[in-house]
Amino acid sequence: MSSFKQADHKLLMIPGPIEVSDDVLLANAHPSMAHVSPDFVPVFGESLEMLRKVADAPSSQPFIISGSGTLGWDLAAVNLLEKDDDVLVLTTGYFGDSFAECIAMYGAHPTQVVAPVGSRPSESEIEIALKQKKYKAVTITHVDTSTGILMDVEAITKIVKRVSPDTLVILDGVCSVGSEEIHMDAWGIDYLLFASQKGIGIPPGLSLSLASPRAMKTFASRTTPPAGFYTSWTKWLPVMKAYEARTPAYFATPPTNLIYALHTSLKTITEGPVSLAQRFEKHREASQRVKKGIENLGLEQLAQPDSRQNGVANGMTAVRYPQGFKASDILPKMAQRGVVFGAGLHKDAKDEYFRIGHMGVSVVDPARRDVDIILQKLEEALAEAGYQKQ
Amino acid sequence: MSSFKQADHKLLMIPGPIEVSDDVLLANAHPSMAHVSPDFVPVFGESLEMLRKVADAPSSQPFIISGSGTLGWDLAAVNLLEKDDDVLVLTTGYFGDSFAECIAMYGAHPTQVVAPVGSRPSESEIEIALKQKKYKAVTITHVDTSTGILMDVEAITKIVKRVSPDTLVILDGVCSVGSEEIHMDAWGIDYLLFASQKGIGIPPGLSLSLASPRAMKTFASRTTPPAGFYTSWTKWLPVMKAYEARTPAYFATPPTNLIYALHTSLKTITEGPVSLAQRFEKHREASQRVKKGIENLGLEQLAQPDSRQNGVANGMTAVRYPQGFKASDILPKMAQRGVVFGAGLHKDAKDEYFRIGHMGVSVVDPARRDVDIILQKLEEALAEAGYQKQ
Repeated sequence: MSSFKQADHKLLMIPGPIEVSDDVLLANAHPSMAHVSPDFVPVFGESLEMLRKVADAPSSQPFIISGSGTLGWDLAAVNLLEKDDDVLVLTTGYFGDSFAECIAMYGAHPTQVVAPVGSRPSESEIEIALKQKKYKAVTITHVDTSTGILMDVEAITKIVKRVSPDTLVILDGVCSVGSEEIHMDAWGIDYLLFASQKGIGIPPGLSLSLASPRAMKTFASRTTPPAGFYTSWTKWLPVMKAYEARTPAYFATPPTNLIYALHTSLKTITEGPVSLAQRFEKHREASQRVKKGIENLGLEQLAQPDSRQNGVANGMTAVRYPQGFKASDILPKMAQRGVVFGAGLHKDAKDEYFRIGHMGVSVVDPARRDVDIILQKLEEALAEAGYQKQ
Repeated sequence: MSSFKQADHKLLMIPGPIEVSDDVLLANAHPSMAHVSPDFVPVFGESLEMLRKVADAPSSQPFIISGSGTLGWDLAAVNLLEKDDDVLVLTTGYFGDSFAECIAMYGAHPTQVVAPVGSRPSESEIEIALKQKKYKAVTITHVDTSTGILMDVEAITKIVKRVSPDTLVILDGVCSVGSEEIHMDAWGIDYLLFASQKGIGIPPGLSLSLASPRAMKTFASRTTPPAGFYTSWTKWLPVMKAYEARTPAYFATPPTNLIYALHTSLKTITEGPVSLAQRFEKHREASQRVKKGIENLGLEQLAQPDSRQNGVANGMTAVRYPQGFKASDILPKMAQRGVVFGAGLHKDAKDEYFRIGHMGVSVVDPARRDVDIILQKLEEALAEAGYQKQ
């Protein structure tokens, strides 16, 4: 076992990138390897297989591609949609809006159901929307990183299956995979896209995704070619199949070091001492502790009361500044105490709240005590800023 | 200074990924950082500035984007070309063919000038082609990684300026930037695309590129929007400008760890004890030594006699197997000796040759003696395989 220890640094408690363990960082510093080497091929192949486990998607086709989470939207738009397709976009923040913009850029037509800041579309709103038009696909942002609102994906997929069974279900799991329960096959999700730097616990730079057999069939029966080259599954599918069959193939050089890091983290997530079910439970527990701690300090969540019961993320919390306080009163005081929180992002409330990430090793490894630390430091920072609980 | 040493491994002497230095690998294992952190912002900003130095392109606009080298083709096609534009593609191997395929995927029309295996298009062929049709752009693969053929970019740009001055010059520098001399501004290159895992000396996962003022003007005067979302400069340009101005901006989470690695390597390349001019000279010297060593062993280059004088890469060498020998006779014996060479890639000669990479630390750091080692091991492997020099 290596004795590699990462350098001292501020505790990174934003909704991604998140704290990364020493063993994963050491894997990211793996000696340079040929992407076709017999040593690397199984690392890539096993990583693809482990993605299926994390998404509980035994029937799906996984993809590991060099890029940011954002690239996953393009992959959906390029491979699953065609020009003039109608798409229903369920929006709880910045990332729903952007996904709609991406879809429109490729010539499909997004119709948004936009929830007010801190809320989520109701099941009846979604049902009504699905009945109004025949949609090729519905997109759901599982957790919108700008608000921390959690969608009830299982309930929504049930509505879709009942009202519009031919409609594909596309799930943006960037801020949920690894920290929120997902059963891709059982729930009937057709395309799940995510990234490396959140619940998966590695540095940013990988676009990760899985496609259901129905999604692959939709892709295979396109009447127009995919509207991109780097984004085309025509190019990537043979590569993913080859590596899973333990033979190399080439379209673009895979990001070998990030794939070593991914492999290391996925091994821990799927085969480590903490089971996947326990991992999700630990995220729920930590989230409750953070949200309770916030409440004890007299602070409000960005989430409206109607969403607070079940509609908030377990991997992050969006917190309103106390009346009369702003980012510059609090965040620098946290940084001085060695803790990094995220600023607000939703266009209509950007300056009114901050964001705390509580994912991955920060909540799964109890020895770190990260949640206790941040709540303690937040109390100190608020006191120094002159805040008094009402 | 850290005492981090990468794990023992086979010497990776393929035309990318290449051997990476310990300090760069340690930077790739940097603790997780917020992409908007005041500590990270200058690392991104300085990296953009240093890209201009490596390309000798003071007037250009640099881009650092999460993705493979291949993504650079899409960036060119999406932002500089529009549907039905004509493009002249100068092809010396696999990568020229693929670039043409990418261009066609976006609805532009590539016309290829294809050289026979191991040769390059002549200047007169290029001039004739440029006179036959008005091309929006000409693309040049500086070094085609599949053949190791080097194009005389300076000479070609002179022809373009003389015969068709409005035509944009797009240079695929994936296998040349950092190991071949490039003067982007002086030569009049409009778009230069490359990747992280070759002459730049870091792990794969970054699409790097620079656009000339003329390219940015072409982009700004498009009549149709860019044909992509993740690939759109409309999205990336404000981000790059912001980081260079030392403020954060967001479109997609940048690959923070790879950018730390990039920063570390670019510092060495642009400000280290070996100047950029000396770096190119060291690549030329090493290349001569490899090519001379190959000749001494009685082996032939893939490059035809007409290309050997000036038309071969300084960062790699493509070598024909001796008559009667094949990959399985030689490459496993090299691997047993701790050296990884690359297999052939050109569709018409795949099984007839192997590829040696000699870039970056392997040739710039003389203490490593990598060139001596590989020539020695190759001699041993050939002898074990029963080869006798004719």
